[in-house]
Amino acid sequence: MRPSGRAPDQMRAITITPNFTRHAEGSVLIGFGDTKVLVTASVEERLPPWLRGKGEGWVTAEYGMLPRATHTRGSREAAKGKQSGRTQEIQRLIGRSLRAVVDLKKLGERQITVDCDVIQADGGTRTASISGAWVALRLAVNGLMRQGLLNEDPITQKVAAISCGIYQGTPVLDLDYVEDSNAGADANFVLTGDGNIAEAQATAEGAPYDEEALLRLLRLARIGCTEIFAAQDKAIAG
Amino acid sequence: MRPSGRAPDQMRAITITPNFTRHAEGSVLIGFGDTKVLVTASVEERLPPWLRGKGEGWVTAEYGMLPRATHTRGSREAAKGKQSGRTQEIQRLIGRSLRAVVDLKKLGERQITVDCDVIQADGGTRTASISGAWVALRLAVNGLMRQGLLNEDPITQKVAAISCGIYQGTPVLDLDYVEDSNAGADANFVLTGDGNIAEAQATAEGAPYDEEALLRLLRLARIGCTEIFAAQDKAIAG
Amino acid sequence: MRPSGRAPDQMRAITITPNFTRHAEGSVLIGFGDTKVLVTASVEERLPPWLRGKGEGWVTAEYGMLPRATHTRGSREAAKGKQSGRTQEIQRLIGRSLRAVVDLKKLGERQITVDCDVIQADGGTRTASISGAWVALRLAVNGLMRQGLLNEDPITQKVAAISCGIYQGTPVLDLDYVEDSNAGADANFVLTGDGNIAEAQATAEGAPYDEEALLRLLRLARIGCTEIFAAQDKAIAG
Amino acid sequence: MRPSGRAPDQMRAITITPNFTRHAEGSVLIGFGDTKVLVTASVEERLPPWLRGKGEGWVTAEYGMLPRATHTRGSREAAKGKQSGRTQEIQRLIGRSLRAVVDLKKLGERQITVDCDVIQADGGTRTASISGAWVALRLAVNGLMRQGLLNEDPITQKVAAISCGIYQGTPVLDLDYVEDSNAGADANFVLTGDGNIAEAQATAEGAPYDEEALLRLLRLARIGCTEIFAAQDKAIAG
Amino acid sequence: MRPSGRAPDQMRAITITPNFTRHAEGSVLIGFGDTKVLVTASVEERLPPWLRGKGEGWVTAEYGMLPRATHTRGSREAAKGKQSGRTQEIQRLIGRSLRAVVDLKKLGERQITVDCDVIQADGGTRTASISGAWVALRLAVNGLMRQGLLNEDPITQKVAAISCGIYQGTPVLDLDYVEDSNAGADANFVLTGDGNIAEAQATAEGAPYDEEALLRLLRLARIGCTEIFAAQDKAIAG
Amino acid sequence: MRPSGRAPDQMRAITITPNFTRHAEGSVLIGFGDTKVLVTASVEERLPPWLRGKGEGWVTAEYGMLPRATHTRGSREAAKGKQSGRTQEIQRLIGRSLRAVVDLKKLGERQITVDCDVIQADGGTRTASISGAWVALRLAVNGLMRQGLLNEDPITQKVAAISCGIYQGTPVLDLDYVEDSNAGADANFVLTGDGNIAEAQATAEGAPYDEEALLRLLRLARIGCTEIFAAQDKAIAG
Repeated sequence: MRPSGRAPDQMRAITITPNFTRHAEGSVLIGFGDTKVLVTASVEERLPPWLRGKGEGWVTAEYGMLPRATHTRGSREAAKGKQSGRTQEIQRLIGRSLRAVVDLKKLGERQITVDCDVIQADGGTRTASISGAWVALRLAVNGLMRQGLLNEDPITQKVAAISCGIYQGTPVLDLDYVEDSNAGADANFVLTGDGNIAEAQATAEGAPYDEEALLRLLRLARIGCTEIFAAQDKAIAG
Repeated sequence: MRPSGRAPDQMRAITITPNFTRHAEGSVLIGFGDTKVLVTASVEERLPPWLRGKGEGWVTAEYGMLPRATHTRGSREAAKGKQSGRTQEIQRLIGRSLRAVVDLKKLGERQITVDCDVIQADGGTRTASISGAWVALRLAVNGLMRQGLLNEDPITQKVAAISCGIYQGTPVLDLDYVEDSNAGADANFVLTGDGNIAEAQATAEGAPYDEEALLRLLRLARIGCTEIFAAQDKAIAG
Repeated sequence: MRPSGRAPDQMRAITITPNFTRHAEGSVLIGFGDTKVLVTASVEERLPPWLRGKGEGWVTAEYGMLPRATHTRGSREAAKGKQSGRTQEIQRLIGRSLRAVVDLKKLGERQITVDCDVIQADGGTRTASISGAWVALRLAVNGLMRQGLLNEDPITQKVAAISCGIYQGTPVLDLDYVEDSNAGADANFVLTGDGNIAEAQATAEGAPYDEEALLRLLRLARIGCTEIFAAQDKAIAG
Repeated sequence: MRPSGRAPDQMRAITITPNFTRHAEGSVLIGFGDTKVLVTASVEERLPPWLRGKGEGWVTAEYGMLPRATHTRGSREAAKGKQSGRTQEIQRLIGRSLRAVVDLKKLGERQITVDCDVIQADGGTRTASISGAWVALRLAVNGLMRQGLLNEDPITQKVAAISCGIYQGTPVLDLDYVEDSNAGADANFVLTGDGNIAEAQATAEGAPYDEEALLRLLRLARIGCTEIFAAQDKAIAG
Repeated sequence: MRPSGRAPDQMRAITITPNFTRHAEGSVLIGFGDTKVLVTASVEERLPPWLRGKGEGWVTAEYGMLPRATHTRGSREAAKGKQSGRTQEIQRLIGRSLRAVVDLKKLGERQITVDCDVIQADGGTRTASISGAWVALRLAVNGLMRQGLLNEDPITQKVAAISCGIYQGTPVLDLDYVEDSNAGADANFVLTGDGNIAEAQATAEGAPYDEEALLRLLRLARIGCTEIFAAQDKAIAG
Repeated sequence: MRPSGRAPDQMRAITITPNFTRHAEGSVLIGFGDTKVLVTASVEERLPPWLRGKGEGWVTAEYGMLPRATHTRGSREAAKGKQSGRTQEIQRLIGRSLRAVVDLKKLGERQITVDCDVIQADGGTRTASISGAWVALRLAVNGLMRQGLLNEDPITQKVAAISCGIYQGTPVLDLDYVEDSNAGADANFVLTGDGNIAEAQATAEGAPYDEEALLRLLRLARIGCTEIFAAQDKAIAG
């Protein structure tokens, strides 16, 4: 039995509020249950020096957690003067996941920076970030196309991410904080709209797991991402 | 004529949503027009080492701005590895303003940290932060009293803050970003519920101003704070 | 009764030694009683990249306190690897105060950096810094004019600063360390030679203060600045 | 055809030199072809403060790359003043992989820190690090047991890691630098001696991959780890 | 011919003003010609944690250069966020030089921190710092003895330092900035009152030098230190 | 009697393995007994901005110590976020020593960076670094000459370095860790192939030493460097 009473393959409620803030070219507030992430996509018409002159653009991501997004207050990374290894790992993952579905040549020599800031955390902040980031990116690119700055759509397909894990011996979908803290294995899958895999990461927290478990987790992830893709479509359709 | 069409002594709409997030002992989303700040008050039942053993507590504040809260994206302070001088100046001001209305002895040996994170910026982020911080603090202290952890209320009165300035020669209340960028003088007043002043700061951005101007700005601030106090009362009562 | 035996509106002795060091284009050792600040103004004939090409110059300031300027040794900011919030707040204030009396267009595309280093501290280090900084700036600009590098004087008028506060219920001028540590309110005023205000900051350290108190502090500041202006004139003439 | 002429399921030569340095409780120089990593395991009989008093120990890892381990010189992280996101991601992975096969309760209140420093890089530095780290850890624990400081063996089984990827459409084992730079997908598997998975990470560098590809990569990893386990056994026995 | 017209074995004027600042237990402004260093010795009646419990004290030093001590303004180390290698090298040298003449057991469990801040630089800042540091230390220890906090004098003898070098083929004493920038070899000697050597450092800036040159530089240093010892005596007696 | 049983003027075994790694233009593993340092020389065909346009090149060095090179594990400088004063002092010394025997004009507008990373430490890591650095530099320059990128040899002669010190009253050559920790004086000499001195540093760790001791240490250093020069020749010839 899951603490939340959910079935093993049951997601939490997905909420996506597009255009949550005014200034960003794309923005979204995404919720996976009590996990809430504010995502903005910022378009800059120039690249940092080391990326210039290749005839292509760049998509990158930054991630942060507000100090009291969590059950007890964590220290502010800006005050500590550095981003944790966890933060860097997550923002690298978000960036890679988005670039897996963007044709950088078609994007042209511009950079889109996606900021994912966790307002409230209850497990799955990185997967909610990726799933919301795609919507913010989509909104920003739609704007570029509407303005005639882009003729071809550089986004090749949808991308979404979901966590799953083995909780008390049972593979379950979309772990919340209580499950995540006690999971025997913890996986994050980043799937594309055509059913392929952009990234798979599965870590044994307790005993190592077998191939069958990996496949069962992947199957759960497919169920979850199907639901997220639908929510993304609805948010874009607005 | 103000760019927004407001009268010189007219505030923007004040919105205060109490209990905006789940985990914090007190939390609020405060809006002064398009400026939106998420404020949380976190209670910790212990003090940092250098404050222990004096039989009193501490109230402190941290401030941050999401990278794309602004018209163009700013760099993330956690990624740069340090907080700007502006950030530190603001968070010191917020902390002082709150402590001006808290009896630290009555608070007991605990610390309340107020985090003010700007979700969207359109001028006046520091004054919205202070005004919202008081509500978050009030909610957190109410919780401590309900739980019997505090017998006497350590909050002595309300505190609120508002900006005002001289825009095209005219003293105006509650500057938005466009006005702020072009103001001849820029002031922030932190007023208490009994009509006194916790902090006054008035800076000439262009030509130095005279005593009469200072007094007119203070009078506008009184009008603004009266309105904020009412909104705070309503949010707490709500 | 003030600990120093001074009358409420009595300044400490002001001492200004121009050309205290050899290398700087302008330099001064300023004393407000036992507070001693070494100020240098350094002219650079080029601007940092982000200020270039606007046809105007820049005046900025940095502030530091020698580790044993104070009663007990403080840690060295260079060794800690960062400047405190207090340091940054003060150096921003000094820079703003000087720019309030400089026509940056007339200064041309050059930068003047004013360094204020506190040799000995006894309260009022920021106001002594500002008051001395103006003299160092004046000396440096005089040099530029003598060399024919400037045809028009970019300095529009004098600027000086003084602290005042409420000590044991009485408004007093030019707080020393003992008074400052126990003041009920602590204010710093930056006034210009024509009697206007470049910056006013008044903070309640204890109980919030009323409008009348603010005005009485401002009146004391006028008395103090009149005396500083005279000392500045004498130092420049000297 | 692989640039090295290897068959798709062919590993590079594995070399493990135990006791490569004198001071560490366990040390090893491991080579996967031209990739060479010096690994040391350091036993400290005390834990950092935040891990004390739980009746169990800790195993952690740090990773570094000498500046000229690579084809062109990279900057020294100590000189830049921070570890890159990549470095932190790798050292977190090494630590998790080791802890997956250590019973921390049996280890007792001591810490073992494994340092993996890349002397020469040609792809697969993280997997060589993990595979070598297990040997260094094993040697260090053997020493603790010989000295009677441990009665029960806290290491539950072997662990090894190997990279594989899709190179020009073909799944291949143990990517060298040339392959790694051009791979369509890049995976790292951490497998335990009993055939289970401690960690799986598979990233699409180009087009997302399908489930069948993931399984084929895993099968290659099993081939590679079998070979590494044999080399580990030999090194320990030696 | 030396640029200053001095004879090869001629020092610049040595000036030592004891008790230059009020708060420090010992303080001195020392000048070697136009090089001016403010030195304070601060006594703390407790040691940092890693030095406690050995029944002895510690003497350490910090060094800084005001940004405009030099011909052109250097950047402020506190603003850059780190001390240069040169700064660290110098402060380590000052600390070692003082400890060479202090019996740390007799000092007892207290720390004396000597701060050397260069007000104006014209070559020889490190040797002026050491020579002044001894006076500040002597004054601070005298105070401890007067107060009865020390019964035995922990200072075993005098220490002084001087630079010398080979300028245009000739060994010269006490290099000023112009000579230092063009010297073929640059040496610093730290000598004790009994004629022994606490530290010798001699660096070839151009062509390597021979043993005879090293000895001639040492002989010059003896001449210089004799003069400094006399100035130290006079300052202490004063 | 020395702990190692060596005679006072007896070096430890010198081992130099040229071309220890593949990627660097020059590389060497040098051993002075149990002290082992991996040195690489990296040629870059461009200079950092501040060195450009002078028609000459630059040689610089960086130094590091692997965390468990020492008897007990030290913290990793990259993880701490800064290089220690000792590290900076050593890398500055290595760079100066190499530049003493390089004609930077003949090197042309290119930079050679020498990285010295201590794999295992038993005293004398800085002198082994310098001695090995010369070999790595020689190998790199030989490569540039073979490729016709240099017509004239910019290396003017050999350079080597050795420590010596006063151990239990006796001057001894090539201190190992045990001797170094207990030495009364500790010296490092950097000598050139023609018998001159590039750098001499001699520090009293206990009682200050006299001129005679300095000369005896220098004489020991000559014996040691003669042996190192022979080993360098053999390594280059090999």
